[in-house]
Amino acid sequence: MNTPATPWSLAARTAKMNPSVIREILKVTERPGIISFAGGLPSSKTFPVPEFRQACAKVLQDDPAGALQYAASEGFGPLREMVAASLAEQSRAAGVPWKVEPSQILITTGSQQGLDLVAKVLIDAGSRILVESPTYLGAVMAFTPMEPEVVGVASDDDGVDLADLAAHSSGARFLYVLPNFQNPTGRSMTEPRRAALSAQAAQSGLPLIEDNPYGDLWFDTPPPAPLTARNPEGGIYLGSFSKVLAPGLRLGFIVAPAAVYPKLLQAKQAADLHSPGFNQRLIHAVMQDGFLERHVPTIRALYHAQRDAMLQALAQHFPDAAKAPEQSLTWNTPAGGMFLWARLPAGMNAVDLLPHAVAKGVAFVPGAPFYANHADPRTMRLSFVTPSVEEIQRGVAALADAIREQQRA
Amino acid sequence: MNTPATPWSLAARTAKMNPSVIREILKVTERPGIISFAGGLPSSKTFPVPEFRQACAKVLQDDPAGALQYAASEGFGPLREMVAASLAEQSRAAGVPWKVEPSQILITTGSQQGLDLVAKVLIDAGSRILVESPTYLGAVMAFTPMEPEVVGVASDDDGVDLADLAAHSSGARFLYVLPNFQNPTGRSMTEPRRAALSAQAAQSGLPLIEDNPYGDLWFDTPPPAPLTARNPEGGIYLGSFSKVLAPGLRLGFIVAPAAVYPKLLQAKQAADLHSPGFNQRLIHAVMQDGFLERHVPTIRALYHAQRDAMLQALAQHFPDAAKAPEQSLTWNTPAGGMFLWARLPAGMNAVDLLPHAVAKGVAFVPGAPFYANHADPRTMRLSFVTPSVEEIQRGVAALADAIREQQRA
Repeated sequence: MNTPATPWSLAARTAKMNPSVIREILKVTERPGIISFAGGLPSSKTFPVPEFRQACAKVLQDDPAGALQYAASEGFGPLREMVAASLAEQSRAAGVPWKVEPSQILITTGSQQGLDLVAKVLIDAGSRILVESPTYLGAVMAFTPMEPEVVGVASDDDGVDLADLAAHSSGARFLYVLPNFQNPTGRSMTEPRRAALSAQAAQSGLPLIEDNPYGDLWFDTPPPAPLTARNPEGGIYLGSFSKVLAPGLRLGFIVAPAAVYPKLLQAKQAADLHSPGFNQRLIHAVMQDGFLERHVPTIRALYHAQRDAMLQALAQHFPDAAKAPEQSLTWNTPAGGMFLWARLPAGMNAVDLLPHAVAKGVAFVPGAPFYANHADPRTMRLSFVTPSVEEIQRGVAALADAIREQQRA
Repeated sequence: MNTPATPWSLAARTAKMNPSVIREILKVTERPGIISFAGGLPSSKTFPVPEFRQACAKVLQDDPAGALQYAASEGFGPLREMVAASLAEQSRAAGVPWKVEPSQILITTGSQQGLDLVAKVLIDAGSRILVESPTYLGAVMAFTPMEPEVVGVASDDDGVDLADLAAHSSGARFLYVLPNFQNPTGRSMTEPRRAALSAQAAQSGLPLIEDNPYGDLWFDTPPPAPLTARNPEGGIYLGSFSKVLAPGLRLGFIVAPAAVYPKLLQAKQAADLHSPGFNQRLIHAVMQDGFLERHVPTIRALYHAQRDAMLQALAQHFPDAAKAPEQSLTWNTPAGGMFLWARLPAGMNAVDLLPHAVAKGVAFVPGAPFYANHADPRTMRLSFVTPSVEEIQRGVAALADAIREQQRA
C-alpha cells in the first residue's frame, strides 16, 4: 500500500502564523532566580479568592442546571446589563455620555477572542489594517490568520500621530488602538488627541477598534472617556475582566454597533458556541453590590507603589537620564497599568542585551517585536507588577550593571 | 463635517455567515408548554453538582493563584495526561492500541473551538472539504468563515459510503466524520466500515477529522475503536467534556499529530490565549479517582431508558412502519447518544410539518439543514434526552396527530 509521507496540506495562512516571539523570550527568562520584568501577568495578590469561593457556592446553589448547561452565544443577560451600565456610568463621569445598551454587549472568551472575532468579520486577505507603533503583539497574532496587510502608524507620548494616520487611512479597514496605559508602552492618549482622532476617524470613515484591558488601573486620575463613546456607530470597544478580577476565568466583552454586532455574534457562535456560563455567573456574582468599587482601588494602590519603586530605582541607577539621554537608559512615567517603556543608550540593542541581563539575573522584553514596521531596537518593556519592591530594586541594579558592561564592551 | 452613513466594510466571508437555522427553529419551539424533541442539550439531571462544588473548594484551596492566573495555551498538564491515558485505555480495550502522548493533546474551549482551529489551519478559500450527509451543522458553521467548498458524502446506516467518498476525495483537504451516535442521525459506523474507511483514507492521503462528543454514551456495548487510533498520523481527533460532565464549563480537546499540532497551538493562542485554567482544574479534580467510571453509567442508563420510551411510543403510534414504510413515519434505533433519526411518509416535508406539530404541542428539528447538499426533506431529528418519559409519550402522540392531519389534508 502506497501511503503518502504526510497527508496534510496546510492553509496558506499558516505560513504567517508563528509562535509568539515574546512567549519564546519568556521561556528563556523563566529560569529560577531570575527577577522578571518581562511578564505581562497581573499580580496574583490581587485575585479576590474568598469572593470567588463564595460565588462558586452561590452559583451552584442558586441555579446549578442553568450555570452548567449550554447557554446563549450573546452571554449571560445580567452580566451584559452590568457591563452596559458600568460603561455608561464611567463615560458619563468622564464627560462624554455614552448610551450603551445590553443588546450591544457580546461576552467573549477573554478580550483576546474579541480580536479574533473582529478579524474574521472585518479582514479579507490583503486588507490594510492600521495599528499603533508599537502595539500589543497578541492583537497582531489574532489578526494575522485573516491575512491582512498590517501597517504601523507613528505614535508619540500623546497617542496616535494624526498626520501619519491620515497618510495611511485610505482604504484601511480599521485602526486598532489601546488608548489607556498601552501594552507595551504604558502610554495614554490625551483628551485633545482623543477628540481629534475621533473627529478625524469619523470624517474619513475609518472604524476604530478600541481595546481597553487596563483602563481601570489608573493611579491618580481616571483616563479620559473612551473613543467609542464619542462615535458609537463607528467603533468597536473591547473590555476584559482579566486585570480587575482574574485572567484564569477567560472572560471579556465586545461593545459593537448594530452594523457589525450580528456578524460578530455569528462568528462567536461558530468559534465556541458561547463563553463558559458558569464563569459568567461567577463574575456576575462577585461584582454584585459594587465589589469592584472596593476592590479595584487596592489594585491601583499596589501597582502605583510598584511603579514608584521602579521609577525610584531607575533614577538612582541612571542619574544622567535627563542630562544625557543618548548616553543613558531613559524611560517614561505611566499614569496607570502594568508597563513602563524604556530606551537604551545610542548604539545599543535590547535583543542583544537580553542574554547579558539574564546572566546578571534580570529579564525584560525587547521592544522590537511590538512594532509592525520601523522597529526601534533600543526600546524595551518593563513590567513593574509582578516582582516585589525589593526585587524591583535588585533587578534595576542588575539591569544597570548589564548596560554599563555592554557600553564598555 | 461629512460623516459617512456607515464606515464598516465587512469581510467577504461574512456574506456566508448566517444565523444557525436550528437556533432560529429552537426559538419558535421555546414556547412554554411545548414538548421539545428539538433541543441538543444533555439532561441537566446528569450534571454532577456536588462534585463540582467540592472541586471548586479544592481548586481554590490548593493553588488559587495558579487556577486564576494566565496559563499555558496547550492546557493544564495533569488534565492533558489524564485525557491521553484515558484515550489510550479505551482504544486498547476496543482492540486497536493507540499510543496517545500528552504532548499531542490541546485543550480547547469546547470541542466547537477545535473545529474553528481545524478550519483555520487546514482550509484555504475554495478548498474542498468533505462531510457526511447529513452532518453536524455546527461544524459547517465553524468551517464556513474560512470559505471552503463543502461537499456532502453519501452515508448509510453503517457509515460513510466509500465509493461516493472515492468519487469526491481528489484534492479534498479532509473528511469530517462523527463515527459514534452521530448528530443528527444517531448512527454509528460499524467496525468493518471503520477499517475500510481508515485504509482508504490512508491510501489516498485524505486526512480524517474525527469528532467524538457522544462516544461515551453507549447503551449496550462500547463503540469500535476510533478511526484516529488506526492511523494517528493521518487524523485529528476531537473530544468533549460537555456530554459526560457539563457543557457550561466549555471544555474539550484535540488530539493532533506533530505535522499539524504546532499550527493548531498557534491558532489557539491567537484565538483566546488558553482555555479557562480554573475550569480545567475543576474538570481534572472531578475526574480524579475514576469518577467518570461511576458517573457515566448513570447517564447511559438514563438515556437508554429515554430512548426505549421513544421507540415504544413510536411503535405504538406508527404500527405500519415496517409494513408500509412509504405511508408511515419510520425511524432508526440508535445504540447510544442523544438523537434518533426519523423519516416522514412519502410526499411530506418536515419543514412544512413543524408549525402544525408545534400547534399540537410538540417540536422537532427538520433534517434538511443538516445536509450540505441533496437534502432529504422528509427527515427529522428527535432528541430523546431532555423530556421525561411521560412527555415523550405525549409528544410522540401529538406528532402522530400532526402527521395524520397533514396526510389527510
